[in-house]
Amino acid sequence: MDSPWLLAAPWWVCRRSLLCNCLVPRLPSPLSHPLHTRRENMAGEYVFLAAVSLLSACQQGYFAKLVGNCRMKHKIMPPAVTGAPEFERTFRAQQNCIEFYPVFLVVLWTAGCFFNQELASLLGVFYMFARYKYFFGYAESSKGRLLGFYMSLIALFCLVLLATAGVANGFLDKYFDIDMLKKIHRMF
Amino acid sequence: MDSPWLLAAPWWVCRRSLLCNCLVPRLPSPLSHPLHTRRENMAGEYVFLAAVSLLSACQQGYFAKLVGNCRMKHKIMPPAVTGAPEFERTFRAQQNCIEFYPVFLVVLWTAGCFFNQELASLLGVFYMFARYKYFFGYAESSKGRLLGFYMSLIALFCLVLLATAGVANGFLDKYFDIDMLKKIHRMF
Amino acid sequence: MDSPWLLAAPWWVCRRSLLCNCLVPRLPSPLSHPLHTRRENMAGEYVFLAAVSLLSACQQGYFAKLVGNCRMKHKIMPPAVTGAPEFERTFRAQQNCIEFYPVFLVVLWTAGCFFNQELASLLGVFYMFARYKYFFGYAESSKGRLLGFYMSLIALFCLVLLATAGVANGFLDKYFDIDMLKKIHRMF
Repeated sequence: MDSPWLLAAPWWVCRRSLLCNCLVPRLPSPLSHPLHTRRENMAGEYVFLAAVSLLSACQQGYFAKLVGNCRMKHKIMPPAVTGAPEFERTFRAQQNCIEFYPVFLVVLWTAGCFFNQELASLLGVFYMFARYKYFFGYAESSKGRLLGFYMSLIALFCLVLLATAGVANGFLDKYFDIDMLKKIHRMF
Repeated sequence: MDSPWLLAAPWWVCRRSLLCNCLVPRLPSPLSHPLHTRRENMAGEYVFLAAVSLLSACQQGYFAKLVGNCRMKHKIMPPAVTGAPEFERTFRAQQNCIEFYPVFLVVLWTAGCFFNQELASLLGVFYMFARYKYFFGYAESSKGRLLGFYMSLIALFCLVLLATAGVANGFLDKYFDIDMLKKIHRMF
Repeated sequence: MDSPWLLAAPWWVCRRSLLCNCLVPRLPSPLSHPLHTRRENMAGEYVFLAAVSLLSACQQGYFAKLVGNCRMKHKIMPPAVTGAPEFERTFRAQQNCIEFYPVFLVVLWTAGCFFNQELASLLGVFYMFARYKYFFGYAESSKGRLLGFYMSLIALFCLVLLATAGVANGFLDKYFDIDMLKKIHRMF
């Protein structure tokens, strides 16, 4: 009831609160878990995936900005989303990128965490390039979107394959302690 | 200044680079963190959530494909998104699924990581089934969407409840070292 | 071929299956990894980010509900998305929030995991407030959206800066064992 942890709690909450945490040096804490000291390392494991995700998020923001520019150019006032064909194409190009963005993130991270981070990141960069081709191709003409679109489908398909293999391996590893990926790794 | 780590750095970057990492066997490395050897296990912890996320990503891709098929059937050329009522319904059904997809992923993973992975995955599968009912119901008639929509709301609501309980427990655990979930677990 | 693990496998899969896992007390298992016992702690590390993500997911659901209410008020039957200007503005406001939601999640988690969780969560709360201003401002008039929109851009921009710094630090840490963030931390 009267343990020293309970007495220390308000001070503890204060010390861990938002501003303190940024400004005050971290004292060794009586409640800290051993894993807390390794936080940067754990996140750092997935630094490639994080870099690709961050870049693709910036790409999405860039596409949104281009749609805004196109809107201004053709004087289409929000909330309207119809008008000049060029604007409609640019808008649909961005909408299609948005539709596929969460799907891309899911397969990128699943493939990266369960199969191979570097391969997944490479495919992620290829996907971003495909989306770049798609967006600017679509903005020019309806036909122009096809090349980039098929390239992005190839990237997604490869990521889904890797992710499926990785998750299947994860189940084998979890329930039967058979890690096929590690075995294949060792053969080379 | 002249430490062996700095001299070894270029070789190290090369060895860890994309292609090498896939083809060359992993030598024990002087810079490796102890956690690196457990990567598969850490990801493997959340293999159920990853499997459900991957399946739902495939479902989203499948819906996108069906909208494309419906577009071809009614000869509606992009970037148009209006025309035959059947196409408009199918398109809106997919748009609604896309709107809720990131929300679904957030509550699925929060509930799975902080409350119980297996329960969250089960609700995730139920959500996917509800979205399946919704999509095909909506494609047939506007009224047909309601059953699937309410089912998906129930799934999301349960996931939000679990996630809220889990996050609240996470705060208690972090600041007061009280892990209610573990206590409840032990009672049975 | 005939190892005890293989014989025990069906029982093991059953014991780990969905319902069992919730109801049966966890026995010490011969196959369990040492990390499994620390699951709550690992997830608990990112409890602030999870709480902000959960709240923002609820906000997205709330916006979707308001669009539904507005649809009923103006008697615009799905799948139509045009009609009364108030509905069109509300609908576009929600669509814009949806567009930026995955981008927000990516930069929030990257900034939180690689730079500083508390700072990123604070910016995440600010972003949610900005989106709240944006949504209700846009529902009233097209001009009303601007303040909230610029506020949300500031929040996103800060998160991108933090995330970029964090990821750059992650690469330095991974390949050269230089952790700038820790060094800066120690200076204070």
